[in-house]
Amino acid sequence: MPVTSWHADHAWLGDAPASDVLITADRGRFTSVTPGVPRPPHAERLRGLTLPGLANAHSHAFHRALRGRTHAGRGTFWTWREQMYAVADRLTPARYLDLARAVFAEMALAGVTCVGEFHYLHHGPGGKPYDDPNEMGTALAEAAAQAGIRITLLDTCYLTASVGGDPLDGPALRFGDGSAAAWAARVSTFNVDPHARLGAAVHSVRAVPPSQMPEIVAWADRHDAPLHVHLSEQRAENEATLAAHGRTPTALLHDAGALGPRTTVVHATHLTSADVGMLGSTRTHACFCPTTERDLGDGIGPAADLAAAGAPLCVGSDSHAVIDLLEEARAVELHERLRTEQRGHFGPPFLVRAATSHTALGWDDAGSITPGARADLVTVTLDSPRTAGIDPAGLIFAATAADVTDVVVDGARIVQDGRHLRIDVARELREAIACLS
Amino acid sequence: MPVTSWHADHAWLGDAPASDVLITADRGRFTSVTPGVPRPPHAERLRGLTLPGLANAHSHAFHRALRGRTHAGRGTFWTWREQMYAVADRLTPARYLDLARAVFAEMALAGVTCVGEFHYLHHGPGGKPYDDPNEMGTALAEAAAQAGIRITLLDTCYLTASVGGDPLDGPALRFGDGSAAAWAARVSTFNVDPHARLGAAVHSVRAVPPSQMPEIVAWADRHDAPLHVHLSEQRAENEATLAAHGRTPTALLHDAGALGPRTTVVHATHLTSADVGMLGSTRTHACFCPTTERDLGDGIGPAADLAAAGAPLCVGSDSHAVIDLLEEARAVELHERLRTEQRGHFGPPFLVRAATSHTALGWDDAGSITPGARADLVTVTLDSPRTAGIDPAGLIFAATAADVTDVVVDGARIVQDGRHLRIDVARELREAIACLS
Repeated sequence: MPVTSWHADHAWLGDAPASDVLITADRGRFTSVTPGVPRPPHAERLRGLTLPGLANAHSHAFHRALRGRTHAGRGTFWTWREQMYAVADRLTPARYLDLARAVFAEMALAGVTCVGEFHYLHHGPGGKPYDDPNEMGTALAEAAAQAGIRITLLDTCYLTASVGGDPLDGPALRFGDGSAAAWAARVSTFNVDPHARLGAAVHSVRAVPPSQMPEIVAWADRHDAPLHVHLSEQRAENEATLAAHGRTPTALLHDAGALGPRTTVVHATHLTSADVGMLGSTRTHACFCPTTERDLGDGIGPAADLAAAGAPLCVGSDSHAVIDLLEEARAVELHERLRTEQRGHFGPPFLVRAATSHTALGWDDAGSITPGARADLVTVTLDSPRTAGIDPAGLIFAATAADVTDVVVDGARIVQDGRHLRIDVARELREAIACLS
Repeated sequence: MPVTSWHADHAWLGDAPASDVLITADRGRFTSVTPGVPRPPHAERLRGLTLPGLANAHSHAFHRALRGRTHAGRGTFWTWREQMYAVADRLTPARYLDLARAVFAEMALAGVTCVGEFHYLHHGPGGKPYDDPNEMGTALAEAAAQAGIRITLLDTCYLTASVGGDPLDGPALRFGDGSAAAWAARVSTFNVDPHARLGAAVHSVRAVPPSQMPEIVAWADRHDAPLHVHLSEQRAENEATLAAHGRTPTALLHDAGALGPRTTVVHATHLTSADVGMLGSTRTHACFCPTTERDLGDGIGPAADLAAAGAPLCVGSDSHAVIDLLEEARAVELHERLRTEQRGHFGPPFLVRAATSHTALGWDDAGSITPGARADLVTVTLDSPRTAGIDPAGLIFAATAADVTDVVVDGARIVQDGRHLRIDVARELREAIACLS
């Protein structure tokens, strides 16, 4: 790959936009970043404001099939989950490749250059392993490659149906490996290409008994891999955990050695102040998924308290009711405003960091426009009805996924003028979802 | 204007989408609506799902200049208001025409066919009336005409700076008419074109003493005009009103005879159950502005309680942090989910009605695709990354303003393929806002 040069009208450098930024890259890495210079003839102009690549820290790709389809009648998180299981039950590796390729391409159009796929649909109907027991995960990694983005495949251990240890049944049989040891044995045979890396996930304290957690933590330690876990999205999880174990889910994870700077807890909605202290003092990441948390009626988590306690924040589109990381990031602030009736908990620099930080996904060399970093660029127009007339410094409060015009991943262009260069995203989404109805 | 025919792949008829809908109009009114028929050659195809025109029931056009510019540092509604006053102070009739024309054109692109402009910036610097004392209002009506949409100009009475009756000062001098009688005298000389109608507004219980309200109510009664009022957006307003009058703001309005089916209370965030009962039993409309209410940290109002009590709901983009009525409508449901941790308070039929009902704005002949109604059509693509693969019945939970492709107002096309036919919206927004910086 030859040296490539771009010239951005505005680019987000450090914690603020700079103007007239000449950016060069070689073999997928930035080699120079120079603000305040005119555009040389060979450099491609990037109009608008160019951000680092966005990291979608929490995704379940197949949930996209449910968008707009779960709003008839009343219900809760738990009734929604029944609908989600019904879709899971219809997936095969080939269908999931098609669906995930389209969903990851939708993410690319929204400026996502790396996705953390929290993957638990491992096995065939009834829980029968495929000939290659990692066939589903391989399909997801391949889908990301075809869509042009990087992936952290968070291979998820899922063992029980409740905090009390009820066995899996129905569609959930497809999630289970039987034991953490069997999970580790399977994952250890899983090889991925360089655009992907493996991580571990404990589905939740509902799905993994405390006795099984250390094996998963040890695997992540051995592989220097990210470890993710759903945490306290619903009050019922907290109540069942207190009843069964006399501790909160956060305390249970803490006691199992599962918290720390390589760990990300997802949602973290219903926490005690002691929970917040444990997550902060261990420098555990907290991944907020505000558009899902409002869709599912989860509630509003204590984002400002977590950040103040020392927990880095990141964001994810989770159920894909919406795929728009700009909206996720600003919603962290806007939900906090609804909760506290005060403004200004997190300013644009913090929110842009939350949307672009790749550390929760284990890519320490991505997420900033600096020499040596992976050459990911996301250009957002300042010329749409939404962004016209704004101060570029406030972009995160005004732009949407529809305003992303150009995306470069590892030095390679994948989106141009709002179109994916390889994939007809709408057609593939429509066809992949029709196969599941 | 000749008979026009459209053929919609899907059109929202009553409370659900129908397919293959032939729609004809003559002189700005629908003449026939026929689902389930093939497209005749002369009928223009509307791809996607075509909705009735969207009614933006609460707007302050000039607030658009603040989008993305108020998020540095901490603060509250009240500190934000200082920034808003500073913009107001720089407006002249000519500048406001230019800005409002661009903002109303942004609304048109988002599918808004009628706006309720809550207008209180009446006078020149220091409160000196213009030679035509309705020059500012005339500029707003003209701006809507140029942007191609209808307007209900809610001419606002604004007399005092606090519940205690403190006099206006600084930029707020430009809002004041001195007395309700002087307000009524001014408004009675205001003539508007047929694309516009006049309504009245009591700014709030902060700005209009109870003794002055009956005059405004009487004016609205005499003219069969809508009456709007900001209500209980902030707890401080409630506390001050209780201290000064021993009643809630809702009770104060009720006692002044200001509630009823022609009245719309805007925000209605912090209500007692007695307030909810008064609003419901009087069939007063409640206008929620969720994207503003989260931006300003107002909190979450009791939407489901109000609807259950009998108050019709409508929505508005208010401060224009976001102009997207589809987002406003679904956010009524999504905020209620955050508040209650339950799903399914309002389904798509209710939310589409909230976004399309024109009754709060006094246009009883608009907001549905039925013979005799005003020929307003808003086509939303089902072929974007956001909407591909959804069930059209769930559109309100998936589409954004960016997915609006075509808009017809009173039988005339104003937006085609996502472009305003008369106005370069981004350029005009940029230029009009630059003049105010």
